[in-house]
Amino acid sequence: MLQKALEFASQNNERFLAELKEVLAIPSISTDPEHKADMQKAAEWMAAQLRTIGMNNVQIMPTGGHPVVYGDWMDAGKSAPTVMIYGHYDVQPADPLELWQTPPFEATVRGENLFARGSADMKGQVIASLKAAESVMYAGDMPVNLKWLIEGEEEIGSEHLDNFIKNHKELLKADFCLNADAGILAPDKPSITTGLRGLAYFELKVYGPKKDLHSGLYGGAVHNPAQALAELIAGMHDKNGKITLPGFYDKVRKLSKKEREDFARLPLPNKLYIEQTGVPALWGEPNFTVPERLGARPTLEVNGLLSGFTGPGSKTVLPAWAMAKISCRLVPDQTPEETIKQMKKYLKENAPKDITWELTYLHGAGAALVGSDNIGIVALSKAMQSVWGRKPYFLREGGSIGVVVQLQKHLGVDSVLSGFGLPDCDAHSPNEKLHLPTWTKGIDAFIHFFYNLK
Amino acid sequence: MLQKALEFASQNNERFLAELKEVLAIPSISTDPEHKADMQKAAEWMAAQLRTIGMNNVQIMPTGGHPVVYGDWMDAGKSAPTVMIYGHYDVQPADPLELWQTPPFEATVRGENLFARGSADMKGQVIASLKAAESVMYAGDMPVNLKWLIEGEEEIGSEHLDNFIKNHKELLKADFCLNADAGILAPDKPSITTGLRGLAYFELKVYGPKKDLHSGLYGGAVHNPAQALAELIAGMHDKNGKITLPGFYDKVRKLSKKEREDFARLPLPNKLYIEQTGVPALWGEPNFTVPERLGARPTLEVNGLLSGFTGPGSKTVLPAWAMAKISCRLVPDQTPEETIKQMKKYLKENAPKDITWELTYLHGAGAALVGSDNIGIVALSKAMQSVWGRKPYFLREGGSIGVVVQLQKHLGVDSVLSGFGLPDCDAHSPNEKLHLPTWTKGIDAFIHFFYNLK
Repeated sequence: MLQKALEFASQNNERFLAELKEVLAIPSISTDPEHKADMQKAAEWMAAQLRTIGMNNVQIMPTGGHPVVYGDWMDAGKSAPTVMIYGHYDVQPADPLELWQTPPFEATVRGENLFARGSADMKGQVIASLKAAESVMYAGDMPVNLKWLIEGEEEIGSEHLDNFIKNHKELLKADFCLNADAGILAPDKPSITTGLRGLAYFELKVYGPKKDLHSGLYGGAVHNPAQALAELIAGMHDKNGKITLPGFYDKVRKLSKKEREDFARLPLPNKLYIEQTGVPALWGEPNFTVPERLGARPTLEVNGLLSGFTGPGSKTVLPAWAMAKISCRLVPDQTPEETIKQMKKYLKENAPKDITWELTYLHGAGAALVGSDNIGIVALSKAMQSVWGRKPYFLREGGSIGVVVQLQKHLGVDSVLSGFGLPDCDAHSPNEKLHLPTWTKGIDAFIHFFYNLK
Repeated sequence: MLQKALEFASQNNERFLAELKEVLAIPSISTDPEHKADMQKAAEWMAAQLRTIGMNNVQIMPTGGHPVVYGDWMDAGKSAPTVMIYGHYDVQPADPLELWQTPPFEATVRGENLFARGSADMKGQVIASLKAAESVMYAGDMPVNLKWLIEGEEEIGSEHLDNFIKNHKELLKADFCLNADAGILAPDKPSITTGLRGLAYFELKVYGPKKDLHSGLYGGAVHNPAQALAELIAGMHDKNGKITLPGFYDKVRKLSKKEREDFARLPLPNKLYIEQTGVPALWGEPNFTVPERLGARPTLEVNGLLSGFTGPGSKTVLPAWAMAKISCRLVPDQTPEETIKQMKKYLKENAPKDITWELTYLHGAGAALVGSDNIGIVALSKAMQSVWGRKPYFLREGGSIGVVVQLQKHLGVDSVLSGFGLPDCDAHSPNEKLHLPTWTKGIDAFIHFFYNLK
């Protein structure tokens, strides 16, 4: 009945898109307390969808933070595999708003793309998996049991999901998890992600004088906290782009010859990254290729800086404090816990005595790596081959997905990572977009995937 | 008739304070285009005051920016000296607003202080000079000719004043200028400022990727512009706090033995600066005392930093750009023009090729130093001795006052710098305040000063 499901999907593509636009209109920004009601609204929308496509036991479950949406369908029987399908209904903040060509929460089609916050990351991917399941349910022969886990805190580190999973081990038992929160290499280059970097996200505040001072009256006799922060940040990398936090590389798993060969085979020339980012030149550890730097090497990034006067014009102020948001991407076998210690040690050893500092750990997750013999990876690989007519690439991605680590830790459940965002989809940036032809192929690929698990 | 003037001032002190509160209620923030109407309102208030106290030829004169208020009284005759009295009616922005105990534009007396933006810098000082003149005018024997020059752009670098002075050389001719935009050391330690540092104020922007990127997807392969900016800023000082801009110290005038002795005599122990600023320890060039660092040594300060995500919570963004406001305090014989070249040279030599940068020079002024035999300094010194019962200290201040340089350059007019702000007055900071007993003494000192010039 594969054909019946594919035809249903094809005939209903316009409605699927309309429903996607509907959920993209909800500004479910998890980090912003002002959008709490929108978070609830998005959760309810997801729950209604699950009921509509025939799932049972649909619930909006409290977590201590934003709720989890759960639903299942267990009628394939005990001998059939149980697939957990993970998604998140929350999105990143949309600022800077002035850089959006069309409003972030009014999904707009321009050319082959749908522009909206969350279109690629990841409401588009959630809807693709829902619509694939709907199509197979319509065909009437869903061959696997399904469990949906749709959370609302992915963009803020899945903080409460860890406990939620720990407290619902029986409910969430599954053979593996399909997680569509990754992307593929290009519209004609399907790929499956087997590795993810972890994360440790910090806020570092440096305090100098008890209040903002006149820079003329005190400048030269007081260590400017913005300068002190700049000095601390500058010292976190050496001249070769290596991170200087004490012990930072101790646990980093070395790449095998085979792994380096796999990386070398990826169709990712440096030119591509230059085009995608628009930088004058690439940067990073000289002994590693760019895909290695992004997939298999840890990083330390400044995500934000704030101090003193930042408006138009000038103000001759010596600021009382300076703040940086700093995050490390982690690789196997680093852990956020150790990274916190390393960051603290660096600050203790390097912060001068004429300022004080405060480090807040905001959130994090370990790195993940899945074997290519996983039944989900096999089924999805075959599905992609059917839809694209070519084998997918296997790659490691630079982003961090907390749930992948949590499912492994608490349930022993591996995640099969795919999804149909493209490298230029501008997730987390203005004008985030979803490539619609790829999205439609993605729905088909998920339909094949379900049948491949029979 | 000195006594008559002093009595008038004493009897009218309460009214003087009420008038000061009135002008402090006008949020004349010169850097903020939204306050343009308030700037006009403040100028009109000043013009009305000049008329009320008996000045002639009162005009609000266009400058291309915020207007200058002018008024004069030339009836002392050709043989009497002509004193220019300089002031500014503009103030710094009041942010961060949440740190003010009472609203910045509702002047409030608490204890011996009057709290308001502009109370110390410098509406309080302008009113003190106006009220001293009013008292002497009332006594009926003003011994000097007066010319008032009250500008509206001091807090943004007196940009248009330079041309204004150049274009009104005849109108502004004077023997010297009394400029009350400085302060005294303590309520019981009167002082006159003989030197001022200059200023060169920059905005530096570092650009990396063409848009904000997902830090997981690109982190490690792209030079983070916030990190690159931090590296550039960190490199602007060496480990001893010396500025590394090429040639920065070449023109810095060396301190003579006599000058270093004068500095050493100032009642300014390090403890005082620690108390005033609240820093854990002082900082700066090890071979210079703190008063030397502040008065006779150039500096480079970060006045503001902005990049990426700075709200509450976290956003895993690799920012497209990072910005710093940076200003140098200059000493004789440095010039802003040379500092711009040095800053550009530093950036050209040190900015990496994987980012681009843009340097905007916002404004500046040269440094100034006045001889202690100037007739205005002699008259004010004597006046302070009469009111405080002790000789004033002579010092150099760290701030920059563009008009001092401009008057010297175009008219050959030296400035006598005093005023009755205290080191803890929080000019440019939240809860700016004016110490009222010192202010009242200041009015008396200015009354004496006029008579001392007879």
